[in-house]
Amino acid sequence: MTDREIRHAELAARYLPDELLERFRERAAGYDRANGFFDEDLAELVAQGYLTLFVPTEFGGPGLSLNEVSRLQQRLAGAAPATALAVNMHLMCTGVVTAMVDRGDRSLTWLFGEVMAGEIFAFGISEPANDWVLQGSNTVAEPQADGGYLLTGVKIFTSLSPVWTRLIVHGLDSSGTEPELVYGFVERDAPGITVSDDWDVLGMRASQSRATILRQVPMRAERVARTMPPGRHPDLLTFAITSNFQLLVGAVYAGVARRALELGAAGLKHRMSAKSGTTYAEIPEYRTRIADAYRDYLAVPAQLDAYSRDFDDLVDHGSRWPQLLVSARINASAAARRATETALLCAGGGGFANGSELSRLFRDAAAGLFHPPSADAARPMFAAALLDD
Amino acid sequence: MTDREIRHAELAARYLPDELLERFRERAAGYDRANGFFDEDLAELVAQGYLTLFVPTEFGGPGLSLNEVSRLQQRLAGAAPATALAVNMHLMCTGVVTAMVDRGDRSLTWLFGEVMAGEIFAFGISEPANDWVLQGSNTVAEPQADGGYLLTGVKIFTSLSPVWTRLIVHGLDSSGTEPELVYGFVERDAPGITVSDDWDVLGMRASQSRATILRQVPMRAERVARTMPPGRHPDLLTFAITSNFQLLVGAVYAGVARRALELGAAGLKHRMSAKSGTTYAEIPEYRTRIADAYRDYLAVPAQLDAYSRDFDDLVDHGSRWPQLLVSARINASAAARRATETALLCAGGGGFANGSELSRLFRDAAAGLFHPPSADAARPMFAAALLDD
Amino acid sequence: MTDREIRHAELAARYLPDELLERFRERAAGYDRANGFFDEDLAELVAQGYLTLFVPTEFGGPGLSLNEVSRLQQRLAGAAPATALAVNMHLMCTGVVTAMVDRGDRSLTWLFGEVMAGEIFAFGISEPANDWVLQGSNTVAEPQADGGYLLTGVKIFTSLSPVWTRLIVHGLDSSGTEPELVYGFVERDAPGITVSDDWDVLGMRASQSRATILRQVPMRAERVARTMPPGRHPDLLTFAITSNFQLLVGAVYAGVARRALELGAAGLKHRMSAKSGTTYAEIPEYRTRIADAYRDYLAVPAQLDAYSRDFDDLVDHGSRWPQLLVSARINASAAARRATETALLCAGGGGFANGSELSRLFRDAAAGLFHPPSADAARPMFAAALLDD
Amino acid sequence: MTDREIRHAELAARYLPDELLERFRERAAGYDRANGFFDEDLAELVAQGYLTLFVPTEFGGPGLSLNEVSRLQQRLAGAAPATALAVNMHLMCTGVVTAMVDRGDRSLTWLFGEVMAGEIFAFGISEPANDWVLQGSNTVAEPQADGGYLLTGVKIFTSLSPVWTRLIVHGLDSSGTEPELVYGFVERDAPGITVSDDWDVLGMRASQSRATILRQVPMRAERVARTMPPGRHPDLLTFAITSNFQLLVGAVYAGVARRALELGAAGLKHRMSAKSGTTYAEIPEYRTRIADAYRDYLAVPAQLDAYSRDFDDLVDHGSRWPQLLVSARINASAAARRATETALLCAGGGGFANGSELSRLFRDAAAGLFHPPSADAARPMFAAALLDD
Repeated sequence: MTDREIRHAELAARYLPDELLERFRERAAGYDRANGFFDEDLAELVAQGYLTLFVPTEFGGPGLSLNEVSRLQQRLAGAAPATALAVNMHLMCTGVVTAMVDRGDRSLTWLFGEVMAGEIFAFGISEPANDWVLQGSNTVAEPQADGGYLLTGVKIFTSLSPVWTRLIVHGLDSSGTEPELVYGFVERDAPGITVSDDWDVLGMRASQSRATILRQVPMRAERVARTMPPGRHPDLLTFAITSNFQLLVGAVYAGVARRALELGAAGLKHRMSAKSGTTYAEIPEYRTRIADAYRDYLAVPAQLDAYSRDFDDLVDHGSRWPQLLVSARINASAAARRATETALLCAGGGGFANGSELSRLFRDAAAGLFHPPSADAARPMFAAALLDD
Repeated sequence: MTDREIRHAELAARYLPDELLERFRERAAGYDRANGFFDEDLAELVAQGYLTLFVPTEFGGPGLSLNEVSRLQQRLAGAAPATALAVNMHLMCTGVVTAMVDRGDRSLTWLFGEVMAGEIFAFGISEPANDWVLQGSNTVAEPQADGGYLLTGVKIFTSLSPVWTRLIVHGLDSSGTEPELVYGFVERDAPGITVSDDWDVLGMRASQSRATILRQVPMRAERVARTMPPGRHPDLLTFAITSNFQLLVGAVYAGVARRALELGAAGLKHRMSAKSGTTYAEIPEYRTRIADAYRDYLAVPAQLDAYSRDFDDLVDHGSRWPQLLVSARINASAAARRATETALLCAGGGGFANGSELSRLFRDAAAGLFHPPSADAARPMFAAALLDD
Repeated sequence: MTDREIRHAELAARYLPDELLERFRERAAGYDRANGFFDEDLAELVAQGYLTLFVPTEFGGPGLSLNEVSRLQQRLAGAAPATALAVNMHLMCTGVVTAMVDRGDRSLTWLFGEVMAGEIFAFGISEPANDWVLQGSNTVAEPQADGGYLLTGVKIFTSLSPVWTRLIVHGLDSSGTEPELVYGFVERDAPGITVSDDWDVLGMRASQSRATILRQVPMRAERVARTMPPGRHPDLLTFAITSNFQLLVGAVYAGVARRALELGAAGLKHRMSAKSGTTYAEIPEYRTRIADAYRDYLAVPAQLDAYSRDFDDLVDHGSRWPQLLVSARINASAAARRATETALLCAGGGGFANGSELSRLFRDAAAGLFHPPSADAARPMFAAALLDD
Repeated sequence: MTDREIRHAELAARYLPDELLERFRERAAGYDRANGFFDEDLAELVAQGYLTLFVPTEFGGPGLSLNEVSRLQQRLAGAAPATALAVNMHLMCTGVVTAMVDRGDRSLTWLFGEVMAGEIFAFGISEPANDWVLQGSNTVAEPQADGGYLLTGVKIFTSLSPVWTRLIVHGLDSSGTEPELVYGFVERDAPGITVSDDWDVLGMRASQSRATILRQVPMRAERVARTMPPGRHPDLLTFAITSNFQLLVGAVYAGVARRALELGAAGLKHRMSAKSGTTYAEIPEYRTRIADAYRDYLAVPAQLDAYSRDFDDLVDHGSRWPQLLVSARINASAAARRATETALLCAGGGGFANGSELSRLFRDAAAGLFHPPSADAARPMFAAALLDD
């Protein structure tokens, strides 16, 4: 059996070689300052085949597992968090279909063909004030005679907004006796799609996660993925979305945390202390500070590894799955915030400059507060796990 | 005896009435975006007599105590953190002299006259890589025949850089057999002063705390405040500086924390939940989140109150004073970071917009990591209190 | 004006001299092991006049303030936490009446005479499953023709159970059209009182806080203190109870925290490291550990000082008072738990022995989780402060 | 491929069926109160074949992996923490040899025969003031002509002291030009072994981890496992010890944390609130409390799973291994302390009784502060990982 860590290292060298990461890191500063999209990064990722990572070999892709992609995304996020967060959305869409195939559902394998053909997928799930998230929608889905739907509503935080060509969306069909949630895909060139130009946020700016306004946008019948009742309802599609979303978003923040610690360490090595006559890297109180943050960080990639490998191995955690997945993502984003704060303490005033990579990571890390479900929105699930039968 | 809280409320109404604060708050967004100095705020503060708060009545000022100014600064910081942080520097200089007078040293009372005449004082103590802070200096002080000095060195984080007219500075005179630290004041129009134009930082931007380069800047003999050996050396001037600095910087972050919690609460009242059919202010998990942050916050103004009143009452905490003062400031800045993070969780994605007051407070709060002594630089002092005799 | 700290030191020397504390500390181990009451401590405290601390000079006592008693209780708790926690109950009863006198209500001054005559007061408020605490009661109060009541119910955690002679209790009179809460005092030799012999708990064992069963126990008419509606109802008696209870219970845990840090420091000085060839007191990671705990601790006595002095000075915090008081007590008990944990880390395996003072403090500190309102019971109050109008 | 979780459930049912655990849990209270050893538990574990879990099938055992044993130990610790912690020591000795076999070193396979024959192994590594732990020893090892040694020294925290028949020990041979560490096994009936009768500690009492005094105790030549230089020195034996020790000790505290949360939940379901008219399980603030603790806990078994599976799969983390292993164990023990504290808050005053399982778990969890390396002793390793080359 090949050592997993060797395999990860090989994949890193193949898909995200050091010199590529260095270019990403340098461009990240400019994208952030200009509030621009990561076009050049994307072009290089496409050239690397990065957007096909999840596509199974039988469909022409490299067939990477969620565990493997999670590691790559951690690595990418260490260089360009917003690039990683945004490309995540495309990767998730492909990962979802791979997960379904692995579990015997081949209904969405058409997506692999489109991915191989260069289509870029994005996520149109989040909506204003919809804390049901996957289990409900404020978007109206009007059924059409041919089995398709017309969708009208607003989707927010649509990463990749300048470039996506396919969007996974959901809406609520209230035309029948019982309301039904509809999941499926719409195309960018369909009529009725407007992308907001309002995007000026604290962090993860290059993701350009603008709102998407849908006005009677057609979802073709062959692109309808699922209909299901709103509310809690076990379904392979939504399970696959949750799994890919939580673990890959977690991977991004794990990468941010890791990079912040590296920058904190570099700061300590760089700073000179008049009092001790050494660099700060030799002052015990600072060593202790970064040691504690590093120890806390270590649990994060471990938790991501454990769950992503369970997922890849088709381990059945049953109703515990959402708890596990969400806790991993929440822990990762908390680690990113703590690690960037620690790193600022280590780097000193120089880290506070807007030109420093660290001050950008600090802002990027704050985005981790907002992915669904938020820490508070998830509390009832964790309480119920212990208290409700 | 007048109720202290009534007195604080009267002072708030007199010096920082609500409508003034509202103007400050509105302008704060613009200063931050434009990376500009708070000229209009300053003009209004001057008009209010805010810059004379500490001047004793015998010198024509209102003679406020440190406890009273601390409360006003908390209030000001709740509207305009950078304005509060910068004007702090002027207030400290006056507060230092007041504290010396209260303890029988009237050697610097000339400063009151200058303050009443409209001079603006600032702090030129912090230097690159000088973690001795008050106890050492990398600035060269060359003694002159008339008892004055010529100063050459770099001072960093000089708040109020566009407007200060007087700067408290220190330097090291190594010309004699034993090195001596010199403290005193220089004037803005003295030769040899250059103010850096490099200022682009994450938060507290309107403070315009640019670096100040000193090249043989004359400190006139009558403006020399102290000479003393470098290292630990009990002295009323440096004690007064430490006290005013730690407690008033702490006040700024206490004010930021308080305001963040208000914004978090406003966010919860504003947001609607599809799941609960109410605002988020009625969802227990969010109520609990902000409740915990508020409970944590309460210790901060209490600690500032306890110590500032002890200071005003001339209570002698002896060698424990620095521990008390520094712990209060560190706790305040930690509370600001935690409160802004909590408030972002409460406000949801809207708080992440660069146009939101909260995202600015989040950046402003991060500045609290850097005031001297940092959490790590202070650790030896706290350890020594328990372990060394 | 006399320096407050000098005054505190004088009171410490007068009421709790070092050698007395040392005897308390030695006996504490025995009381804990034998699950016995602190009879000898109590005799010495009585001899010191400690039980009359709050009695105003006009009634023959020393007339100490809440701030002064808070400091003495911190000191006492550092030697014998359970003794301090139990004698607290008596002190509170007297402090409550003093607070009422200070605010113009002399209706309960008879209590001072009893205290001077040697009666010992205790608290009979807590009841099983009564999370209304002061605002409700499961104890039945039957009104009698003479204005007195007969009380039937169970009171729990009645500290001082072996020795109290007077018990402040409350009960609910449901005989009229509207239920009424009755507050007053019963005497130990009244008929119907049974003290449980069930007491075997984790910590604070010497407090002997056994349950008290009341079966038609007479509260004489002249010992009825108040009747009021159940629920939230502003009243000077209950305000005085809350203030004394929260701040003096907080004082006990502040004292435990402080002592734990001393023991942690002593542990570090005692332990030798083969690796460093020094004591642990010279190893930076351990110094940092105890430094952080000490810094955290400092906020606790400061908060107690701020509020107890406000209380003594009749500062009116209005509806904010309960938040302030409860937060101070919760912070103190959290600090005690954290400090004892830190101290165990510093003391190493030796601290784990049942014979070590530290392992006892660790158990005593855990009692702080249970005083009303608990951290969770208090959360709605803190949330309401920000969210409800 | 069999679902791992199904396999874990099967092993749980086979080796630790519910009714067995229930007996362990009931007896745990008695062992703790009487300060007695878990004789009856041990007899049942022996009967279950639990002491042979790690013995490979080729040597007649069931050949369980570290991941599988980790899960069983979590389960056992949930019922009887001290039993789990003590039997851990025997399991580690066998696990160490299994790990060596898996990596090609069959030099200690004689141990399997002894385990199958009923010998009970224990750990004699910890020594007073030896913070080198595995990398040094204060025990004198005198080389004998036949290749054996005579050992003289003191070993502390020797769990299983009443029953062990084989002890893995190390000592320092300073007879040659270079000092050498010696690792090997001694037999209980060898001359010179005294087991202290001093054992009265806060928690994990049934482990009876008494000190072992060695006075020229012979280690037979064929029981010498290794000689190596003191200090950092890569070696399969010490790597296998570290891995088994950290992960299996971590498993014990993970089990304690999990059980504490169950007891906290049971407490909430049991308690009635007069205020809400429901059980506490329906009060949001308490639900939130236990939800947060549960979410924090989830990372702990995940981290143990990730690393134990990597270990079983022979993944090579190189010099990162010790960081990973130690962080997992420290996190597990912290989770146990936090979970027992949270559970006490949930269970209320009833949990404070010495008769409650929870108050015992709270004391047992405190033992987790002391396993080597302690949190502070480990800080340099984590710092070095980031800062040193």
